[in-house]
Amino acid sequence: MPVGTQGTVKAVSPRELHELGAQIILGNTYHLHVRPGEKLISRLGGLHRFNGWDRPILTDSGGFQVFSLARLRKITEDGVHFQNHLDGTPTFIGPEQSMEIQRDLGSDIVMTFDECPPYPCEEAVASTSLDLTLRWAVRCKEWWASQPDESKPLLFGIVQGSSYPELRAKSAQELVKIGFDGYAVGGVSVGEPEPEMMAAIENAEPHLPQDRARYAMGLGTPPQMVEMVARGIDMFDCVLPTRLARNGTAFTAAGTMALKNAGYAEDPGPIEEGCTCYACANFTRAYIRHLIKAEEILGLRLVSLHNLHFYLNLMRTARRAIIEGNFAEFRRAFVAGYKKNEANA
Amino acid sequence: MPVGTQGTVKAVSPRELHELGAQIILGNTYHLHVRPGEKLISRLGGLHRFNGWDRPILTDSGGFQVFSLARLRKITEDGVHFQNHLDGTPTFIGPEQSMEIQRDLGSDIVMTFDECPPYPCEEAVASTSLDLTLRWAVRCKEWWASQPDESKPLLFGIVQGSSYPELRAKSAQELVKIGFDGYAVGGVSVGEPEPEMMAAIENAEPHLPQDRARYAMGLGTPPQMVEMVARGIDMFDCVLPTRLARNGTAFTAAGTMALKNAGYAEDPGPIEEGCTCYACANFTRAYIRHLIKAEEILGLRLVSLHNLHFYLNLMRTARRAIIEGNFAEFRRAFVAGYKKNEANA
Repeated sequence: MPVGTQGTVKAVSPRELHELGAQIILGNTYHLHVRPGEKLISRLGGLHRFNGWDRPILTDSGGFQVFSLARLRKITEDGVHFQNHLDGTPTFIGPEQSMEIQRDLGSDIVMTFDECPPYPCEEAVASTSLDLTLRWAVRCKEWWASQPDESKPLLFGIVQGSSYPELRAKSAQELVKIGFDGYAVGGVSVGEPEPEMMAAIENAEPHLPQDRARYAMGLGTPPQMVEMVARGIDMFDCVLPTRLARNGTAFTAAGTMALKNAGYAEDPGPIEEGCTCYACANFTRAYIRHLIKAEEILGLRLVSLHNLHFYLNLMRTARRAIIEGNFAEFRRAFVAGYKKNEANA
Repeated sequence: MPVGTQGTVKAVSPRELHELGAQIILGNTYHLHVRPGEKLISRLGGLHRFNGWDRPILTDSGGFQVFSLARLRKITEDGVHFQNHLDGTPTFIGPEQSMEIQRDLGSDIVMTFDECPPYPCEEAVASTSLDLTLRWAVRCKEWWASQPDESKPLLFGIVQGSSYPELRAKSAQELVKIGFDGYAVGGVSVGEPEPEMMAAIENAEPHLPQDRARYAMGLGTPPQMVEMVARGIDMFDCVLPTRLARNGTAFTAAGTMALKNAGYAEDPGPIEEGCTCYACANFTRAYIRHLIKAEEILGLRLVSLHNLHFYLNLMRTARRAIIEGNFAEFRRAFVAGYKKNEANA
């Protein structure tokens, strides 16, 4: 899922997202609540009409941003009091408020409101936090159960439990008891080493039902995503394709490429040989490097398009490999090819 | 002509320019000489291949930028010594150098190298400057005459003469004696009041041949352009559509519109009712205002598209009105409608 934090995937239009084959995008509940506000978006017909995206939208719960962006947080059983990062307005979001905001946005997949403990985190703290997250998950489910059936979106629960295998397992098991339409693994890619990130997935996954979507939140690099697909993950959201693009960094099967490098100044080739994206079909590395050096918006637009194409295409390729029964081979080749080059860079 | 200073019309892709119906774009010789350099562009196949624009490109001569951007200028009969605005590299551009740079870029319409006196400017200074510009125009013409015929671009002369009617007339007459494929009026929109700007056109135009394109350089507002069309001008280049867009200001037939204004926060209408551009066909003022307030690139992209559509469509409408014999009526209605609203704003 390309990430549309403030109601737009950065630097990319809905038409371009369609052409890239994006099936779904993510919107950030916290950001849209702070600006322009879900009530305004609702009065204008919901987020789909507001931003001109007619395919599914998943909204996160705001939990992660409350814990990473907001100031003067105070956590209670009810929810979180905080001052927003823009103008410091005192705000309260609890499970019910998060559900109401996501309903007003007109989301298609709604996430439960969770507490996101920092990394590293002592086991006792992680355990207390997880219990609160589970009680909030119950309240989110109850809130949705009370809503009218018509056009009710899907509700996904979020596994927490920091780096503790037992907590991850307990979190997944308890969520499944509550019952959700899909399950996410949160609290990953928060600063932990990659083996711990993979372990968090491995400790949760066996307890999640096979017939429900599994979603790893807020990551990752291309090999990380392929490794997580191998561990049963179906969905991802990640800001890397657009964030790195704005710095002039492109993704390729051989690793990342800093297009600012002087070595590309006269390079007549596309960002990635054989790539079918608009940038690669029409422009040279030399031109894109010039645009980035000259701080021209078209430069980061082109790299954003390429990177989103790369990510979406990687997932398409993984899906096809699974269907055709050669995922293991694809995984091995892709991860080896990508890492080798990164080490060389 | 949309302006592509550094080899790209700011925030807009070649595909979008095609869809907007742009027939020709402008490239800035000075900027492209400084970065990435015309030799590099030439080795990559010329500016058209470099930036992926397959329709005509007009390049200015660099004169205006040398006199507005560069530092430590020293003017001699040969040309201008200066330090570029980016890293202070000492550089020399005279008529022949300007011609060579424009040839290397692969321009379709090449402009003569001129001295651009400041405004205001005493008559003696303006007269001396004009004589130098005319001698440089002869050298530009001679340089082009010495070039092989195959795929030789068009060469346009530039009328100078500041705010002095006799100098403007003399400049036009002398240029016509030298003989060019088209004629531009330069040294306008450099800080003078609008009546003086119009007078500069009026003092030059009668001396320019009817069967050659006339081009007013570096302007203007929509009513200014319509007024200049009424005075015989055929071509314009102007940064206003894209520059104002980046500040969230949109052009409409009723005047400019600052989309940041709180009054548009919940406005469900398009930027301009009846407009067929991508922004107006798909997005509300409310959404675009949100994007601009949130400093999202898509916001300035959408306003850039709208503004370029507005300018290009204005010229299409003026052309049609001329062909259909009702230009006087169109001019009166458009200028009245635009100005009235600006006064109200």
